[in-house]
Amino acid sequence: MLTVILAIGREILRGRVQDTNSWTLARRLTALGHKVIRITSCDDDIPAIVREIRRATEDGAALVVTTGGLGPTDDDLTLQALAEATDCPLVLHPEARSLVAARYAALAGTGAVADDRMTAPREKMAWLPQGATPLSNLVGAAPGVWLETARMNYVALPGVPAEMRAIWEQAVLPILAARVPGTVYAERHIVTRARDESVVAPVLRRLGLELPEVYLKSHPARFGSDVRMEVFVSTWASDPDAADRRLARALSLLREALGEAPPADA
Amino acid sequence: MLTVILAIGREILRGRVQDTNSWTLARRLTALGHKVIRITSCDDDIPAIVREIRRATEDGAALVVTTGGLGPTDDDLTLQALAEATDCPLVLHPEARSLVAARYAALAGTGAVADDRMTAPREKMAWLPQGATPLSNLVGAAPGVWLETARMNYVALPGVPAEMRAIWEQAVLPILAARVPGTVYAERHIVTRARDESVVAPVLRRLGLELPEVYLKSHPARFGSDVRMEVFVSTWASDPDAADRRLARALSLLREALGEAPPADA
Repeated sequence: MLTVILAIGREILRGRVQDTNSWTLARRLTALGHKVIRITSCDDDIPAIVREIRRATEDGAALVVTTGGLGPTDDDLTLQALAEATDCPLVLHPEARSLVAARYAALAGTGAVADDRMTAPREKMAWLPQGATPLSNLVGAAPGVWLETARMNYVALPGVPAEMRAIWEQAVLPILAARVPGTVYAERHIVTRARDESVVAPVLRRLGLELPEVYLKSHPARFGSDVRMEVFVSTWASDPDAADRRLARALSLLREALGEAPPADA
Repeated sequence: MLTVILAIGREILRGRVQDTNSWTLARRLTALGHKVIRITSCDDDIPAIVREIRRATEDGAALVVTTGGLGPTDDDLTLQALAEATDCPLVLHPEARSLVAARYAALAGTGAVADDRMTAPREKMAWLPQGATPLSNLVGAAPGVWLETARMNYVALPGVPAEMRAIWEQAVLPILAARVPGTVYAERHIVTRARDESVVAPVLRRLGLELPEVYLKSHPARFGSDVRMEVFVSTWASDPDAADRRLARALSLLREALGEAPPADA
């Protein structure tokens, strides 16, 4: 399933915060068989977010995963933008409101917040695009959001990494795992004796023609003061065994072509 | 100057590599007075890269900074895509060829590569969009690229972080510093006693109306086991003094509104 990741937040664009969420999500989505085609960080700005959501549709994506912009402040605008982009107006969602209220009751119980009154900024987090499902947040207060439309599935997660990961594990993984797209992604790599990518390039070209289902990519890596070429082979296949067989063959041909002994470093 | 950062490389989309370059560039571009409006990672694929370059134009950007895809392998496609997107066909650039040749001579001298023959994969790195200027790479082999068109300036940098940073410092910074857009960006923050973003939200809304030139943003931060709200204030101004005065006033009003003593932690 083609997937776009959107990391929403001005702090990322100003370089004040490093976006680590997209990296986490890219690994996890790839492991589930999803093909991430784009990762974009955009501003806390409704037209900017709407534009990126629409571009995901243009790109043929079937899943958009957003992080950030779900909180109580006025610059948390993700759900407003999602509502606009999907034509699913925001409605006060009773289950989401209960989740938010329960979280503030729990946080007030531990003294983490002063009280559990349902103020407007708190209630804001329970206004979801019509038809959406709230995803319980057991770390912070803002629920995540799952929304299905005819053209696209959307997952909106908080920007705080611990909250993002908690909702992913508890709520998103079960939903996506039940809809596995029937493909697996597998990757292996070897560290070659080659130190020069320009020498590896023609080998990868020739093998790429011979193995159209395998993606080969060299990557200069530093080992102490020495630079060595790592070569990664990856493939999408219908089952893990098929992927393993394909990559084993690719690595064997690759070692042969580079004149490498078959070491145990793959 | 509105700026888009493009980090090109399938390894980012698969989550195999974390894109740290965009974070580095976002900080440095912001410090120079450029306003980064989008950061996107896309695939090693000409249509995908062309699409993202065209989208930067749609977004009103005046500068696109790319990382990745300048090397000798067949999946290094950034300059082909840039040539296509700008209608500046690739030509073998004599100065770029000299730079690449000099780098391989130096690398062969240290034994880092086997020889300094100008093979096709090596020469590939000297094919630049017509009108472009090569930027010397004193760490790796692939030159960076500076290209000006009527609508946009482009900087293409290697994906290896040490090479990206070296070309930035040596070649890009002097070019951009000579064209400073006449604005500076300044940011300060305080750590408040507040622990609850939903309480800070209405304060930020009111101050935001009072101080339209200042952007206020809360950010939950963990101090040991305790969560505290940091509040960042930032502004763009014509000179550093104006920015400082504006932010000092914002912090003063912010402390007053939150009932905080004026500590020395700003």
